[in-house]
Amino acid sequence: MNPTPSKRLNTVPASPIRVLVPLANAAKARGTRVYHLNIGDPDIQTPKEMLSVLTNWKQNPIGYGQSQGDKSLLEAFAAYYKKLGYGFIGTENIQVTVGGSEAIAMALFAVCDPGDDILVFEPFYANYASYAAVYGINCIPVTTSIANGFHLPSRKEIERHITKKTKAILLCTPNNPTGTVYTQDELEMLGDIASAHNIFLISDEVYREFVYEGGKPASILSLMERMPRQCILVDSLSKRYSACGIRIGCLVTLHDELLSGVLRIAQGRLSAGLVDQAIAAVMGDVPVSYTEDVRREYQKRRDVLYAGLRTIPGVTATLPEGAFYIIAKLPVSDSGDFCRFLLTDFSDKKETVMLAPASGFYKTPGAGKQEVRIAYVLDSTKLIRAVELLKKALVEYNKSH
Amino acid sequence: MNPTPSKRLNTVPASPIRVLVPLANAAKARGTRVYHLNIGDPDIQTPKEMLSVLTNWKQNPIGYGQSQGDKSLLEAFAAYYKKLGYGFIGTENIQVTVGGSEAIAMALFAVCDPGDDILVFEPFYANYASYAAVYGINCIPVTTSIANGFHLPSRKEIERHITKKTKAILLCTPNNPTGTVYTQDELEMLGDIASAHNIFLISDEVYREFVYEGGKPASILSLMERMPRQCILVDSLSKRYSACGIRIGCLVTLHDELLSGVLRIAQGRLSAGLVDQAIAAVMGDVPVSYTEDVRREYQKRRDVLYAGLRTIPGVTATLPEGAFYIIAKLPVSDSGDFCRFLLTDFSDKKETVMLAPASGFYKTPGAGKQEVRIAYVLDSTKLIRAVELLKKALVEYNKSH
Repeated sequence: MNPTPSKRLNTVPASPIRVLVPLANAAKARGTRVYHLNIGDPDIQTPKEMLSVLTNWKQNPIGYGQSQGDKSLLEAFAAYYKKLGYGFIGTENIQVTVGGSEAIAMALFAVCDPGDDILVFEPFYANYASYAAVYGINCIPVTTSIANGFHLPSRKEIERHITKKTKAILLCTPNNPTGTVYTQDELEMLGDIASAHNIFLISDEVYREFVYEGGKPASILSLMERMPRQCILVDSLSKRYSACGIRIGCLVTLHDELLSGVLRIAQGRLSAGLVDQAIAAVMGDVPVSYTEDVRREYQKRRDVLYAGLRTIPGVTATLPEGAFYIIAKLPVSDSGDFCRFLLTDFSDKKETVMLAPASGFYKTPGAGKQEVRIAYVLDSTKLIRAVELLKKALVEYNKSH
Repeated sequence: MNPTPSKRLNTVPASPIRVLVPLANAAKARGTRVYHLNIGDPDIQTPKEMLSVLTNWKQNPIGYGQSQGDKSLLEAFAAYYKKLGYGFIGTENIQVTVGGSEAIAMALFAVCDPGDDILVFEPFYANYASYAAVYGINCIPVTTSIANGFHLPSRKEIERHITKKTKAILLCTPNNPTGTVYTQDELEMLGDIASAHNIFLISDEVYREFVYEGGKPASILSLMERMPRQCILVDSLSKRYSACGIRIGCLVTLHDELLSGVLRIAQGRLSAGLVDQAIAAVMGDVPVSYTEDVRREYQKRRDVLYAGLRTIPGVTATLPEGAFYIIAKLPVSDSGDFCRFLLTDFSDKKETVMLAPASGFYKTPGAGKQEVRIAYVLDSTKLIRAVELLKKALVEYNKSH
């Protein structure tokens, strides 16, 4: 007899984004080139101002950082929010985190006891479900539809899911995996719901800079002063500066009791990386032109990808308003099976493409089974080729299935 | 009315190591120099081989690493264990973690459901209690005593604490906060207990290199082949390479089902930092002489500190066998109050010393109230001065209390 792992370990889902990685590795081992559109890990350069922190590194030893976050980084975050028009956020309202991931984890833990519910708009970023499983929280999906570009359903439809166990609404805007950018009216509606039902509102805005249809996206920060004890912002540098491997994000709230609890969790893990914090602390030195150039590049890719997808018979998609993802509905009955086919049975001139089956972004059983998430994180030439591969693969797949 | 944070948030304890930091900052603001012996954040240089990874950095963008750990780092860890004589550990048995902290968190989560117990030897590293609180696990303390150098009590005494809820014994050797190095016999006894009661054995060995009384310390790795489904090793580079701010550690086990569950948790947080992983991956390039020099330096400091402490009337301590901590019993009734006094009311030539009250390392109420943990992480000259400050402060404190 041997001891068994905890029951809850089995409840943690495998990442739908990464679960096909072994098949991709096997394809590569066979000499097949794989276009990675399965994960939001962009090829865009990290700003040279950030790289310079590494090449000019002097500090030795590389000791612990502060648990809340190093002073210069906290100040850089506060200055960033000030520039966005939210000067009310001080360094005392910020907890530096190990990526946006840790900010999500901390926010969920801070608002939910085991067995509590959070409302999420489906399809949703799969790792919300991972952390919910770790902390024994139920993700209650409120389904959105490709038919209206994944915008929010009515207040009544959302409120239908709220019970005594509901502790928060968790949203993501600009949205991963849909690319939808919620309007100010949609955010106000969520604020009204949160007020009426006395629950928290957690907003994951790590794609804030990537909005293509004009202007600044609506942010939970616009509600925060009015609802200081209900709003929690989750943020990250990963996408903004194309620096996913620099594990730095933050959690922002005016709820000081909640934040001091979060700091106690942060003390338990000592600190975020000292080098990563130092890299992130120079964010204010990155010129505005960097962000503008990156946005322009993603917009171009979005347009190329969208135009390409429209040429494939049977594929449905709506033009994403932000982030760098698109949900496409394919003419297949099981996109998971098709994504595996792409890696195991298909290649064209020794090339194939890797996509994320969308069912992993849905909680409702069977939902999204025809859909895939495509991350447009490669340049336009590669995207054109990837669309061509997808087109050919669909023909081949549908012949044999 | 406002929503309240989760009940469990309130159960997460403040770090006893970091809780006095605001008082230290206030002392510094008054112009007082503070000798930091409160935290294991050494002044020893990080190896130049590791710093070179930064200054020679070329990779751009800084994208995600692998969730399990980057290949070169996994191989470096496996090569390290092979050099220690444990060649049976392959890269497939290793999960790279964000510091030893995350390895502890993952191990606890993987073996305990909410309400389960783990046995810990008291005094113990305070962050075990933080993660236990986060995951709803009870730390059951088995008390060890300064009188026998904090070595383990009898098998009978340990087994007295085991119930149906007990899922693991968590040990730390060389020990933080006591400096005790368990013997092979002690580890074998724990292995026998784990076998007899069908529970896991989790060993935190991040101080492995710092053993002063001869040879290689006993390791759970010596039991792992015999008990492949019960042994879990927690490790970290932080102390070994004086690189606490490089948040890289690992969890090692031959229990593949447990490890695949741990990998799913790891996927939820995407990856450890790419830069930190690259730094850690060159561990094999660091010459043996680095480790030997560092050990010699700590041994010198230990001897200086221990000799100094023995000159202070009323102070009791046993010579630490490893790590870089000592637990000292002071002639005060409340070491927490004394540690605050050091920062708020005492200074000698505008200097004072910061220590960690040991009560934070005990679970049993009232235990360790006269004790402090001293980390000998500063050079001998500074340690001599720190001992002098401690001596003067005790005289002054005991006059006024």
